[in-house]
Amino acid sequence: MKSDLDALMQAKNLDAILVIGHAEHNPPMYYFVGGGHVSHAALIKKRGEEAVLFHADMERDEAAKSGLKLIPTSKYDGEALYKQANEDAALANAMQYQLMFKDLGLTKGRVSISGNYDVGVVIAMLAHFQKLMPEIEIVGETRTDSVFMLAMQTKEESEVVRIRNMGRITTEVVGKVAEYLTACDVRADEVLLKEDGTPLIVGDVHSKIRLWVAERGAELPDGFIFAIGRDAGVPHSTGTPTDLMRLGQTIVFDIYPAESGGGYFYDFTRTWSLGYATPEAQELYDQVREIFDRLMENFDLNAPFKNYQQMTCEYFESKGHKTPLNTKAPVEGYVHSLGHGVGLNIHERPFSGSTAGDDHRLAPGVVVTSEPGLYYPEKGMGFRIEDTLWVRPDGRIETLAEYPYDFVLPMKKWKK
Amino acid sequence: MKSDLDALMQAKNLDAILVIGHAEHNPPMYYFVGGGHVSHAALIKKRGEEAVLFHADMERDEAAKSGLKLIPTSKYDGEALYKQANEDAALANAMQYQLMFKDLGLTKGRVSISGNYDVGVVIAMLAHFQKLMPEIEIVGETRTDSVFMLAMQTKEESEVVRIRNMGRITTEVVGKVAEYLTACDVRADEVLLKEDGTPLIVGDVHSKIRLWVAERGAELPDGFIFAIGRDAGVPHSTGTPTDLMRLGQTIVFDIYPAESGGGYFYDFTRTWSLGYATPEAQELYDQVREIFDRLMENFDLNAPFKNYQQMTCEYFESKGHKTPLNTKAPVEGYVHSLGHGVGLNIHERPFSGSTAGDDHRLAPGVVVTSEPGLYYPEKGMGFRIEDTLWVRPDGRIETLAEYPYDFVLPMKKWKK
Repeated sequence: MKSDLDALMQAKNLDAILVIGHAEHNPPMYYFVGGGHVSHAALIKKRGEEAVLFHADMERDEAAKSGLKLIPTSKYDGEALYKQANEDAALANAMQYQLMFKDLGLTKGRVSISGNYDVGVVIAMLAHFQKLMPEIEIVGETRTDSVFMLAMQTKEESEVVRIRNMGRITTEVVGKVAEYLTACDVRADEVLLKEDGTPLIVGDVHSKIRLWVAERGAELPDGFIFAIGRDAGVPHSTGTPTDLMRLGQTIVFDIYPAESGGGYFYDFTRTWSLGYATPEAQELYDQVREIFDRLMENFDLNAPFKNYQQMTCEYFESKGHKTPLNTKAPVEGYVHSLGHGVGLNIHERPFSGSTAGDDHRLAPGVVVTSEPGLYYPEKGMGFRIEDTLWVRPDGRIETLAEYPYDFVLPMKKWKK
Repeated sequence: MKSDLDALMQAKNLDAILVIGHAEHNPPMYYFVGGGHVSHAALIKKRGEEAVLFHADMERDEAAKSGLKLIPTSKYDGEALYKQANEDAALANAMQYQLMFKDLGLTKGRVSISGNYDVGVVIAMLAHFQKLMPEIEIVGETRTDSVFMLAMQTKEESEVVRIRNMGRITTEVVGKVAEYLTACDVRADEVLLKEDGTPLIVGDVHSKIRLWVAERGAELPDGFIFAIGRDAGVPHSTGTPTDLMRLGQTIVFDIYPAESGGGYFYDFTRTWSLGYATPEAQELYDQVREIFDRLMENFDLNAPFKNYQQMTCEYFESKGHKTPLNTKAPVEGYVHSLGHGVGLNIHERPFSGSTAGDDHRLAPGVVVTSEPGLYYPEKGMGFRIEDTLWVRPDGRIETLAEYPYDFVLPMKKWKK
């Protein structure tokens, strides 16, 4: 939680944290600013002190919505700095950061840097900054162990409310897609037809998904998955827009909308087969469902998350599938890890892969996915079931948005 | 253009360029990969050679769509590296980069780094990498003078086709908004009413804009502007959702949709006053319109863009307004620069501010905005007119999407 930041900074021997970039689609900045159109901003938080947001003067109204202490960057007279730096933009930028640091009385110590931003610009600036302020040590952090990732991994209830709300929107959209598909007419060769009598293709479904998410005021990263047949068997294939929608083929539908402007995510997957399923597909689906349910019964408060990756691998191996437990980077069978934290990042702590430390736990306040799957691209099929779960302060595991687990979706106007 | 990259690398003494991050919402990566769900990737292009994309094995189908030479990162056995690095993720990451560089025969020289990515992760990795490969010098670049920004500033016709298409979508949506607003009923106090008889607020209009853009398959950064009254007088205020829509107040509508997944942008602004305009607003609008038209008549092939900023300032000063020419960071009058290039970045070369070099020119192939404006937040009004223009290879300046410049939009069911 945000209130952990000072203790985390202490543990990592950081005197301050510097965040750069926009408030949108930039989790560390969003965490403080709460979104809004604040671009090319910087935020500095000294340990034990309030954060200060440096913003463009034109964006003062947007910046004010953050409730943070504000300093407009117009204070630093960029044009004069640029001239003083002999028109070296990177040097002028470093000189401005020097003034900003000095304004906060920050003249020495260790400072971490975070934020999604143009890395080349930052590296060019830092090359000068480190000469201008040799007593400041700017340090990077790894993706999984940064102070932000550590703070963000446990959520306040107000954050869970927002994730749950995205879950409601997600399952509403998934329900609309199921309703739309099952109401389609079906041609003799089992291809679904649109209202106008032409074949329904995956691209048509992608458009509807985008529209139904947008209607609900959320945003949908372009990598969402609605894929059929062989594509369903490749975990991150988004689906080929020209593929025909057909009965009896596996459809993997993995959708992770976020609050508009790069806010909280929800992550969700169902696997469907329209009209009927082949016996082989049904058998594999049932295995995924069985381990999914078994996991739900076995998740224990404070257990290392990777224990459940182990459990999942052992189950799938017992059924004769390859898994990362005994095969390096398998491309069929169970090919990924069980889940991940979800928040302002679609993938965040805790992680469940075999290299994740024991500190990646199902601690009170974490929000994680559970998403076992099986993939057989050569057989033209793939399966995954995924819900987003909250480990409640009382230790109970709550599915943040309920949705049925039916594999075969009966068609309203078609019978075998 | 992309074909300029080798010459630009030579001029900047770069032996290779390294791009990191996702293919979406990451202009340098998108420039090569063309979008798609390719995440946490890296791309290396040696001078005079084809670019190579390093991608996660799970994303092989998406990566293949790029047509680039591919190397799956599974080749490098992340788990073994992590162990070898004593579970130091930043060191393991640097060791993987070392292997990637060696695979391309890149063991010494100057390499620029670009891409929107978590800067802390990159800085942590580079701290190790520079020790592992001391003969490789990794350099940052400034925002305006990077090889990418220089290459991107002139567009191929195939890129202009995509920008023009976004212009068509933009003006369609703007037309729908105008149609919707002018069809509203109006209360005695000049507040617009929705179909259900309740007052229309700015937030309602924001929702419709989002929806109509999404319906057309485009995406809309959250900072688009539809603002009325005082908010219209603050250039980057996005509009207060609870503001009532009223007659006779200035509305600034600045919208810049992009192709889904972070592709090409279009940038467009109109200023409206519904039903009627106050004489003061009409006078100020006419001034903005006059300089807008005068600029269109005066844009010359290959002229420095900032000459037109100068022309705009001189015109507005002659009318008694403050401008950046004689006032530092004015908050009323003409408060910004005239325009900017548009492409995969909403703001790119050429720039028109007074600190832009003479090499920011209206060269054949550039796509720029022209967007003079006047802002008087204390008077509760603001004005801007903006089109996106292509400097054609034949030297003609083409407005990429035509739309009327009417200021007062007559209401269909209301008369003064």
